[in-house]
Amino acid sequence: MSDLSRLSLNQATVKYADLPGAVAACLRAEIPGIGLWREPVAEYGLRKTAALLRETDLVPTSMCRGGFFTSPDSDQRIKDLADNRAAIDECAELGVPELVLVSGGLPAGSQDIDGARALVLDSLAELAPYAGERGVRLAIEPLHPMFCSDRCVVATLDQALDLAMHFPAEQVGVVVDTYHIWWDPNVYRAIERAAGRISAFQVCDWITPLPEGVLLGRGMMGDGCIELRRMRRAVDAAGYTGPIEVEIFNETIWNTDPAEIAELTAARYLEHVH
Amino acid sequence: MSDLSRLSLNQATVKYADLPGAVAACLRAEIPGIGLWREPVAEYGLRKTAALLRETDLVPTSMCRGGFFTSPDSDQRIKDLADNRAAIDECAELGVPELVLVSGGLPAGSQDIDGARALVLDSLAELAPYAGERGVRLAIEPLHPMFCSDRCVVATLDQALDLAMHFPAEQVGVVVDTYHIWWDPNVYRAIERAAGRISAFQVCDWITPLPEGVLLGRGMMGDGCIELRRMRRAVDAAGYTGPIEVEIFNETIWNTDPAEIAELTAARYLEHVH
Repeated sequence: MSDLSRLSLNQATVKYADLPGAVAACLRAEIPGIGLWREPVAEYGLRKTAALLRETDLVPTSMCRGGFFTSPDSDQRIKDLADNRAAIDECAELGVPELVLVSGGLPAGSQDIDGARALVLDSLAELAPYAGERGVRLAIEPLHPMFCSDRCVVATLDQALDLAMHFPAEQVGVVVDTYHIWWDPNVYRAIERAAGRISAFQVCDWITPLPEGVLLGRGMMGDGCIELRRMRRAVDAAGYTGPIEVEIFNETIWNTDPAEIAELTAARYLEHVH
Repeated sequence: MSDLSRLSLNQATVKYADLPGAVAACLRAEIPGIGLWREPVAEYGLRKTAALLRETDLVPTSMCRGGFFTSPDSDQRIKDLADNRAAIDECAELGVPELVLVSGGLPAGSQDIDGARALVLDSLAELAPYAGERGVRLAIEPLHPMFCSDRCVVATLDQALDLAMHFPAEQVGVVVDTYHIWWDPNVYRAIERAAGRISAFQVCDWITPLPEGVLLGRGMMGDGCIELRRMRRAVDAAGYTGPIEVEIFNETIWNTDPAEIAELTAARYLEHVH
């Protein structure tokens, strides 16, 4: 088994590559997995994507993303749930086992965080059986608390687990992403508790200063302060044997040649995560 | 009792005012308390500050700040502890009951978050009796997790309480600051648990987008998404009857006339917190 056998490159790390470009970068760097995003898949075409993955033996490890469940408007809510069902269907067609969910933040002008969090649970209840019947697992991703108001009211791994535990483990799991949870004093206990529920393990590093808007501030593994190997070992100890996805939102990395980024990703993975 | 009787203006909210300027702004807006910072106090002079507070009957509610305990260098550590003792002495001389502590982040290049957190506990053990003997309480402030790497490895109210519980309640307490903890799914349980340990209650609002570096992104009460009154009631229910300090780091606010800021602070306090 190659040392890169668990590695997967999330498409967001090479955002400006189209789907064939991202696939080519993975193949050249001997990265066996790819984390897909719905938009570039739709742009290239769902069937063509399925064919390309079959031809190249590249394994789709997850799909980003569903979620955004916190609209209080009932018409919008119906549309959002329909869009999530479409995302589940796409996963099923491509053989993607895990659909990553970002819960959504507070609606504009709202201060009702309990209400928003309740809508997340309601939406999971609507979608979980639909996903399970199609062999797709909903993967709740807690985002860093700095995104709580505008993107994701699910802010800790424990909170994601509390939500997931309402459902069978084959229907709803959680994403363990080093960037979002490394700061949590309870993180290793939470990872232990996540045994059997880990849908995806994503890695990148924490660097400062954060840029305006903070979305694009993620760092390449080894450039920051996260104990990546320790977290990988904790996830392994919780029984997770699945892929390790690298997902980095960073304008400087995006402006680098995708092939070069894939090579660097593989090298840094071996140095800091494997 | 005036509706403003618990209100205190933290000097950081009118950063560009000197000490007499901040005092004048409080008096004019009928704000009875002031949260002091060591630097402007030193600039104006410790004895002159004590005299000015006596003359004006303005109550000093807290002092910012001590802490920064995470240097692994032993010489630096000795200096840092000496500086914290000096801060305690200043509090004692001014009659300030609570010294706010920001723990410090990870040392440059370090990934050893457990080590940094252990140094915080060691430093508290060094300082707590010294503070207690002088009638000053050390107030551990958890900062928002987005500051974990570069400012404060204490990231949740529960973590601050776990640290404080090692010491007598009259020696070590915690700061409840809405900005830093509002996102926490466990926040109301943590506030309940903080009964008897609340050194200070600070308020401001969460607004987005966050600016580069994220330090100066705080909002005036009512401009953001935090349930400020709900948090005030929770703090009250935990038995806290002390001052409510407004501390806002925001360049736009800093560039406004301090008297105007103090008036707005009082008005927004009545509208959103009281």
